[in-house]
Formats: sequence, structure tokens, C-alpha cells
Amino acid sequence: VKQLSSQRVFEGELVYCEHRAQSTGCDMRFSVFLPPGVSAGAPAPVVWWLSGLTCTADNFTGKAGAYRAAAEQGLIIVAPDTSPRGADVPDDEAYDLGQGAGFYLDATEAPWQTNFRMHSYITDELQRLVMAEFPARQDAQGIAGHSMGGHGALTLGLRHPDLYRSISAFAPIVAPARVPWGRKAFSAYLGDDESSWQGHDATALMTAAGDRSGCAPILIDQGQADEFLDEQLKPELFAAACAESGQVLELRHHAGYDHSYFFIATFIDDHIAHHARLLNAAG
Amino acid sequence: VKQLSSQRVFEGELVYCEHRAQSTGCDMRFSVFLPPGVSAGAPAPVVWWLSGLTCTADNFTGKAGAYRAAAEQGLIIVAPDTSPRGADVPDDEAYDLGQGAGFYLDATEAPWQTNFRMHSYITDELQRLVMAEFPARQDAQGIAGHSMGGHGALTLGLRHPDLYRSISAFAPIVAPARVPWGRKAFSAYLGDDESSWQGHDATALMTAAGDRSGCAPILIDQGQADEFLDEQLKPELFAAACAESGQVLELRHHAGYDHSYFFIATFIDDHIAHHARLLNAAG
Repeated sequence: VKQLSSQRVFEGELVYCEHRAQSTGCDMRFSVFLPPGVSAGAPAPVVWWLSGLTCTADNFTGKAGAYRAAAEQGLIIVAPDTSPRGADVPDDEAYDLGQGAGFYLDATEAPWQTNFRMHSYITDELQRLVMAEFPARQDAQGIAGHSMGGHGALTLGLRHPDLYRSISAFAPIVAPARVPWGRKAFSAYLGDDESSWQGHDATALMTAAGDRSGCAPILIDQGQADEFLDEQLKPELFAAACAESGQVLELRHHAGYDHSYFFIATFIDDHIAHHARLLNAAG
Repeated sequence: VKQLSSQRVFEGELVYCEHRAQSTGCDMRFSVFLPPGVSAGAPAPVVWWLSGLTCTADNFTGKAGAYRAAAEQGLIIVAPDTSPRGADVPDDEAYDLGQGAGFYLDATEAPWQTNFRMHSYITDELQRLVMAEFPARQDAQGIAGHSMGGHGALTLGLRHPDLYRSISAFAPIVAPARVPWGRKAFSAYLGDDESSWQGHDATALMTAAGDRSGCAPILIDQGQADEFLDEQLKPELFAAACAESGQVLELRHHAGYDHSYFFIATFIDDHIAHHARLLNAAG
């Protein structure tokens, strides 16, 4: 792992790293925020932040305003990139397919299947690397994200309950198999057999989960002025599935807020507190 | 004035505007944050934020994390661009001259003198426009900035004490007439007669100010890992001038912090509180 930079912020440290990833076959960048006081002898819980379409490893670090609360609560935050990158990596001219639009799954279809393996990258390769290189608690990891990254947080969180003890999302794509963004990406990455999509659809996963009444609550914030709400996001579908499975969901609708990082910044402190509460109780 | 966008953030409203500026002879963009509850019948104090080299009207809005505290304290924040812009406006290939590097003065030399009139733009034209278009208190305005914008905040604040009742800066260029960034810009914009530079040099203005022991305190934050500290910033020169003039200066040195917006975000709440305290007592 190559450390690209290290900057002090809120008495903690923001580190940018780059490494050659086996799972995606390219160089990948990510950031790690280390709260003050963390050390090998005093490791901290970790929240994984998954960003949305068109984002890189930079959007969250500069715009979310998360580090004040993370420093106070003693949380590490890891923010990976949203896809493999590079001239040798397949891409598409559209903003919602290819580089910048990995959708946190392992593609099975050409030309994507070699590099577009973000599910393996996030849950396995990068997870192991972060545990080896930083003073992070393996047994206290949570996952959060925005839009496409909210889809990632919900699906990875539901698929790996032993790995992620807390889940939250901002304006997530909760039912990708039923909305244009998801249908386009899943067709390309997973092929036309829609049965293979269900394992990457948070609403389908929740419906198939059985009784989740004993599971940790999930927090979702959604702006009511979000330009993608009606066509792409549809949080009511996930809420209905949670109700069926007994999953406690705190779904908050916020009048006037859009899809931007200004919305995220406004409510990020509540997400940090949600993860801190669950992760400090974990392990 | 054309409103380009309006977004809710921390229960307030961030508005981006564009207008044809007389003073700079081009279209100019700026942002205005309106805290919740402000109205024509209940106008709020205003803090002017001046950004640094290479910045546009966007860096502060997305990265400073200022609106949480501004919403709490009930402050309007106006963030203008750092220079005139456009294909018809003179420019230079260097990052520290021309577009993005207006230095908050009125240029007297060709080819800059027609458009590079940021002093008149900020203190007069945009100031009057904001007072006319937004519920802002004319009698409760403060000024703050970063790096080149810290130079702007200090010099405009010292030159217009009736307009600006509170001053603060992050990592300001306090003695531009004596450091490379300032000497290069002043030579180009003001010509070789260095006597004309003194009115745009915060340290020279402070030295010439006479007794300022009754004036409001000035707050400056400076990172000790700032890569520009020794060559370009030199806060000790301004501190010495303040000591001579009896000006109360709170100059805080922060170990480990660099020149970035992560540094600004870490301490912006203290600046918001500084301005709120002085401006709420003004008028």
C-alpha cells in the first residue's frame, strides 16, 4: 500500500492510499480517517462509506463534513472509490455505467467481469488490507453510503451480517432491479437473467430474509426534493419489505432536501452516532 | 441578478447567483447562505468569505463545513468568486496571477485595470446588491477569508472599519508586499512603485493605523504544517504590527495542520462564533 498523503483534520488524520488490487486488476485509491487517540493498542470501530454514481474517493472526504463527529465518537471511516479505473479498464460514455458506476457487485458479463468486482474488493480484499494496515476493529464494522453507495451499503450489509454490524444510507437505490439505473447496470454487469439480480437488490434481499425482528435497526435519510426520488429511489418499497420481515427501519423524510452532499452534510452526524452506538456495543 | 440554484442545507438555504458586474465588466457568480428564520422583517448579520488562489465560488460552499454553525448562530454567509472570469478577461498561465488570483484590489496597470477591480466589486457593488436582494443587516457585516482571501479579509476589513465590524482569517498572506505571491501580483496589478502597495498590505496598514486598542479583536488561525507558512504567510509580521498598534489579535498556531480546507473545516466553528459575537453586538 502506498500512502499518497496524510492531513490533520479535527485532531485526527486523513490518509489517502493507493494499492494494486487483485480483485479489480487495477490501481485503486481509498481514504482512511483515523480519529485522535486510535492506536494498535486501542483500535477503533470502522464505518465503510460507499459513494454514489460519478463519485471518486474524493467526494466524501471533502464534502460530507463527517470527520468532526467521527473524531468525537472515535470512529475510523474508510471511503473507497466507486469502481475500477484506468485506460485498461472497460468504460462506457454514460455516467451510470462503467468507471464511476461499479454498483458494488461482481460482474459476470463481458467486458466487465474481469475488473468490475467491487463486491469482492470491498468486502474481502480491501477489508483485509485495512484490518492489516490500520488499527481497526475487525469485530466492529459498519457500512453506509449514498445513492448507488446506499444500494451498496444495504446489499453488502444484508449479505454479510457477520461483517457489518450497522447499516445506514442516504437516498439509497433500494430496489435496483425495478428502476432504470439498476436495470441498466444489472443488464450490463449480470446479464438478462433477472433471477441473478435479486441477490443485489436490497428490497429483494429483505423480502427473502425471513424474520429480522432481532436485527439492528437500519437508518435511512431521504430528501423530499430529491430529483431522483420517484423514478430511481423508491424508499417505500424497502420500507414495505422491512415491515414484512420485522426489520426495524428508521426512514426519515426531510422536506426541501435534494440529492446532494449538502443533504448528506446536514444529517451525517446522526449517521455517525447510529454507527457508533451499534459498533461500540458490538464484539 | 439571476438565481442559478437553491439548495436546502442545515435547515437554511444556499443560493447561487450570477450577475453582470459593472466594476469587473463580466458575469460574476457568488453564493449566499441564508440561515433558517431569516426574513425581510428579521434580517441577519452577514459574514463575507473571501477564498484563496485558484478557488472559485464553489470551494467554500462544499468544503468548509461552515453552514451548520452559521445556521445555529443565524448568520448569512456570502462567498464571492476570487476574480473576474471569462474569455474576454485578461489571464496568465500561472495559478497565482490573473483569473483565480484577483487579490481583492483595484488594478491600475494594463492589461488588468479594466476588469481586475475586486476591491470595488466586494466592498461596493456586490455589497450593495446583497443588501438590496437579501434580508441582510447593513450595520452588521464581518469579513473572513483564507490565504489570498485572508489577505483580502484583513486589508478590506482594515480599510473599511465602518463597513466590516468583525475580521478573521485562516492562514492569511499578511504581508504581501514582502512575500513572493504578493510581490508578483502587486507588480503586475499596481506597478513597480511599491509605495502604492502599502494600502493593500495588512501589516503595513496595521503599522500605519495608530492606536487600535479599542478595536474589535481579530482572529487568525494558522497551521504549523502549512507548506506556505515560512515563505508566503509570515503571521509573526502581522502580530508584531498589531502589538505596536495595540490591536488585540488572537493568533492561534495549530500543530500538524496544513493549508487545506480540512484545516478550515476543523476551526470554522470558532470563526463563526467570533463573527456572531461581534456582529450581534453591532449596530
